[in-house]
Amino acid sequence: MTPLMWQDNKLILLDQRKLPAVEDRIICSRMKEVIYAISVLAVRGAPAIGVAAAYGMVLAWKEWYTEQGRLPKPDEYQKYTSALASARPTAVNLQFAVSRMQSKYTEIYVKELGYDGLYEALLAEAKAIHQEDIQLNAAIAKHGANLFDHPVRVLTHCNAGALATTGVGTALGVVRELWRRKQLLHVYMDETRPLLQGSRLTAYEMVKEGIPATLICDNMAAAVMRHFHVDAIIVGADRIVNNGDTANKIGTYGLAVLAKYHEIPFYIAAPSTTFDFSLSSGDEIHIEEREGDEVRFIGNYQSAPRDVQVYNPAFDVTPGQLITGIITEKGVLKPPFPQSISKFQRSVK
Amino acid sequence: MTPLMWQDNKLILLDQRKLPAVEDRIICSRMKEVIYAISVLAVRGAPAIGVAAAYGMVLAWKEWYTEQGRLPKPDEYQKYTSALASARPTAVNLQFAVSRMQSKYTEIYVKELGYDGLYEALLAEAKAIHQEDIQLNAAIAKHGANLFDHPVRVLTHCNAGALATTGVGTALGVVRELWRRKQLLHVYMDETRPLLQGSRLTAYEMVKEGIPATLICDNMAAAVMRHFHVDAIIVGADRIVNNGDTANKIGTYGLAVLAKYHEIPFYIAAPSTTFDFSLSSGDEIHIEEREGDEVRFIGNYQSAPRDVQVYNPAFDVTPGQLITGIITEKGVLKPPFPQSISKFQRSVK
Repeated sequence: MTPLMWQDNKLILLDQRKLPAVEDRIICSRMKEVIYAISVLAVRGAPAIGVAAAYGMVLAWKEWYTEQGRLPKPDEYQKYTSALASARPTAVNLQFAVSRMQSKYTEIYVKELGYDGLYEALLAEAKAIHQEDIQLNAAIAKHGANLFDHPVRVLTHCNAGALATTGVGTALGVVRELWRRKQLLHVYMDETRPLLQGSRLTAYEMVKEGIPATLICDNMAAAVMRHFHVDAIIVGADRIVNNGDTANKIGTYGLAVLAKYHEIPFYIAAPSTTFDFSLSSGDEIHIEEREGDEVRFIGNYQSAPRDVQVYNPAFDVTPGQLITGIITEKGVLKPPFPQSISKFQRSVK
Repeated sequence: MTPLMWQDNKLILLDQRKLPAVEDRIICSRMKEVIYAISVLAVRGAPAIGVAAAYGMVLAWKEWYTEQGRLPKPDEYQKYTSALASARPTAVNLQFAVSRMQSKYTEIYVKELGYDGLYEALLAEAKAIHQEDIQLNAAIAKHGANLFDHPVRVLTHCNAGALATTGVGTALGVVRELWRRKQLLHVYMDETRPLLQGSRLTAYEMVKEGIPATLICDNMAAAVMRHFHVDAIIVGADRIVNNGDTANKIGTYGLAVLAKYHEIPFYIAAPSTTFDFSLSSGDEIHIEEREGDEVRFIGNYQSAPRDVQVYNPAFDVTPGQLITGIITEKGVLKPPFPQSISKFQRSVK
């Protein structure tokens, strides 16, 4: 199960908007097709967006060349691809992948490799980002599973799975590893309104692999915590800043508060590419607000009056104080986060 | 706006399943039609269910007479109508209305009033239950609004409005009274999955009356509490027991935990008919679990794999300890609830 692949010099995306009913693919050969796919959430999940953007950068470069009839200079490439960097504002992996590709281009441009050489070098960098994501996932899964020495019940939100990354997933990578080790009793999955990534994607992943899992509406999580002995809540992240404040799918913050009340450990699972070491507090994170019709309509079902006002933030910020640990590819970061994240930053640079 | 009326010796129900897109009516002339309408939630909301059941008891009596060709004895009437009492298990108003009609019948049966006299007396009792509900709502609205001496922002869950009662509503009755007094700044409405009573019904009520209100998904309530200065959370109830534990729409318990964390007062608004003085703790309340397909499908949109396991409780229980006050027709009950509810019980008997 993978959200994307590179084939015949094109980026093939699984159209996640149509899951679980239909498995459809989108073929991107131009940057704007990648931007569109990211902005409408055909591809989503911070790590998957990063990898899609890396390949999008290759397509962008080729497109610039085709249209202009010459190689872009690094600043021209940077300017041209800034639209890709801002396809969505909250997940930092997107900007991370775009800047890394831009830096790579600046580095190789001076080597006068010609069209073919530059194309190959850029593509190799995108493939490296892709491969690294797969490895980061595997390492996160292992470190996360090591947290538990007895069979556990896990609650998760949104989809931080194979469909949100290009590997086994972050939060669901941990779940998969626990299942492999026979240390998983059950998974509770929030459906995650408005776009239902939990019911459409996480449930799809769990059912496909026969992992024992129960779907709930977001507002049932508190009752589940109260009655079903949940051992841990594990979710992904879209951006983690230096004090541990974490932007993730809307609803994560509420879950963290509920976890604290029920004395359930609350874990974030995310690779180093999800950390934004340039910010010191979650207050500085730009939270994307999306169209009200995402709430008013579900498929073509009208669930609310057309003219009702809607507030539809895609993410919220969970304060570091509510987080028990952040599961990364290098191990589990523990509070106090300003210290552990600073040390982590030095280890990944 | 009313969920039901008695007309030409029939019960006319607004089919709330179809709102807000379609305003359709269901005409009931038999008890089983009322049972069906209650069980599929065409009529819902604890007080409205109670009034619908009262009229359903009149239809049941007439039906028994028509089928058997004689007047039912009180025990026959009781036995025959037990199916109506158990159309839904959690809201106590239903059982309350059914027993009150049964008691009334026992009382009048011995008076030998004949068919017409008994029918009139039963109908008068149902109409009394209906009228009382309207008055209870008005009194609750006033007592609730008196809690605030400055303009407020209120968050509510599900629909405890005109559509859930036969008056101005319980929680929304308070909202309406605040609006009338120019003491309402804004209402935040949880959409309330799975059946979306917040987006379909509460939003419909607020938009129709031009009350300033914003619809959110259930999982956004925590972010709203954190960022938008919510002054109070006010919700309805399906059953309140002697220690203040309150069964209400699933998600209420989680809201109460979030309210405590954000130091926001959390109020229940409900008439005395919603109190079950026979139970001493919320653990004794039977919580209805409904079909998984209510979660897997929204209209005809499939939001989850068909074979995924679903947990779908219709209600949860909020412990009395998390409740700031219970707004009743006699005033606002405050903790400690075992004492204030016991005093309240004596005042309404």
